Amino acid sequence: MKISALQTAGTPGDVHANLRALDAACARAATRGSRLLITPEMFLTGYNIGERVHELAATDLLSPVREIARNHRLALVVGLPEREHGACYNAAVFVGPDGQVLGRHRKTHLFGQLDRTSFTPGDRLTSLVDYEGVRIALLICYDVEFPETVRAAAVAGADLVAVPTAQMEPYAFVADHLLRVRAWENQLYVAYVNHDGAEGDLRYVGRSCLVAPSGEVLDRAEHGDSLLSATVDPHVVARARHANPYLVDRRVDLYTDEPVGRRAPHATRDAKDSSC
Amino acid sequence: MKISALQTAGTPGDVHANLRALDAACARAATRGSRLLITPEMFLTGYNIGERVHELAATDLLSPVREIARNHRLALVVGLPEREHGACYNAAVFVGPDGQVLGRHRKTHLFGQLDRTSFTPGDRLTSLVDYEGVRIALLICYDVEFPETVRAAAVAGADLVAVPTAQMEPYAFVADHLLRVRAWENQLYVAYVNHDGAEGDLRYVGRSCLVAPSGEVLDRAEHGDSLLSATVDPHVVARARHANPYLVDRRVDLYTDEPVGRRAPHATRDAKDSSC
Repeated sequence: MKISALQTAGTPGDVHANLRALDAACARAATRGSRLLITPEMFLTGYNIGERVHELAATDLLSPVREIARNHRLALVVGLPEREHGACYNAAVFVGPDGQVLGRHRKTHLFGQLDRTSFTPGDRLTSLVDYEGVRIALLICYDVEFPETVRAAAVAGADLVAVPTAQMEPYAFVADHLLRVRAWENQLYVAYVNHDGAEGDLRYVGRSCLVAPSGEVLDRAEHGDSLLSATVDPHVVARARHANPYLVDRRVDLYTDEPVGRRAPHATRDAKDSSC
Repeated sequence: MKISALQTAGTPGDVHANLRALDAACARAATRGSRLLITPEMFLTGYNIGERVHELAATDLLSPVREIARNHRLALVVGLPEREHGACYNAAVFVGPDGQVLGRHRKTHLFGQLDRTSFTPGDRLTSLVDYEGVRIALLICYDVEFPETVRAAAVAGADLVAVPTAQMEPYAFVADHLLRVRAWENQLYVAYVNHDGAEGDLRYVGRSCLVAPSGEVLDRAEHGDSLLSATVDPHVVARARHANPYLVDRRVDLYTDEPVGRRAPHATRDAKDSSC
């Protein structure tokens, strides 16, 4: 399955402008034969827009996204704020090519004051969607920096982790290195889809990337608006996991979230006892 | 605290030759002001030496290592086979500058047929030693490729993870990328200390490295015998953890080792319900 990823500065606070950009990107992605387009974190409203995010979350953001998906017969992962029972979440919604919502993820690992001021954390580690024979896990930005999240997705059988993000300076290390290792250590595809440019006092690093289960970068942006594309193939995932069986070789019997206590030193043992 | 790491082809199967190399490396490390020297995995006997590893494990390997540590007043992490109750372990022993054994680790994640033919897996995820104000966790080779191991060490307060290894082609990705991400995502130092050259049908990748909590490579070998050195400072670890609080921001409440089940899609929800 071909997928595309839209790196863009977007138009912070202007939903209509972002919908027009989404529509245009869908047209380009469809021309390339893509079946899924992934946008950055909070793409639809902007991310660093203060209280305005709550005003926009109270409007119907999803209907026009569903219409765009239907019009282009293209699945979308779109970052937007979601309100439920008075709480506001930093979310990503998976909309199928018929406009149906097939899944959603709410960011579980909130980043700094920016996230904590605006959002309630989600309570599901990752969220899975099966689409055209590919199992896709959704994470958002800071979530993917914790190895626990991608591991959970891999153990649940994910072939691809789609990560809308809003990664700013000075964290280019994440875009340049961490994502490749997440792909390698779990043998799955990673799509890391970032903002670019400035938004308030944030400077985004761009550098979106599509990474193969081997850690190879299949497509990479630098700065500027970019549409990345790559093919995701579950057979490649299966072969990678056969060649490099991390998931099978895990010592789950030893993994707990209890601190490993300081072990008693063996200093008093005799050399003969301790070595042979 | 200054540490050194010995990358070497060693002399497979010849303990006396390896002890001489250890003695010479200690002299060089001490000259640089190092307080700890780390060797590769199974340095003392060689790694890919078939049944000979069991013959050598039945001899007193540790006494001459303790004597070398005492002579140079230098702590050592030395890779060697360890027998206990009839089982043989792929181990690393931490010997203090007075020759006392302060800790030991037995490889928990066995790699392929080579390990499984020769060794019993250890049953402690990581092993900690407090030495000169630095908390050091020991892992061996394949262990470090699993994010769970280094995370456990970090949660237990490790400042440095010392990793004797025997990393061969085609796994240079681990030496080049994975180690830096392990350091970054846990904000600790990593010392990855490899063999070089060929041993039987294995071709080692060399490329040992000492990595800072920022992911910066402090010293790196290419091919050939090398003695790497760097300074390990727990204050740097503390500052890195303050600036980038992954350990505090973990969602331990969500981490279980149960597969994340496929979530029920929300396709039937109304657009208005699901977005605002």
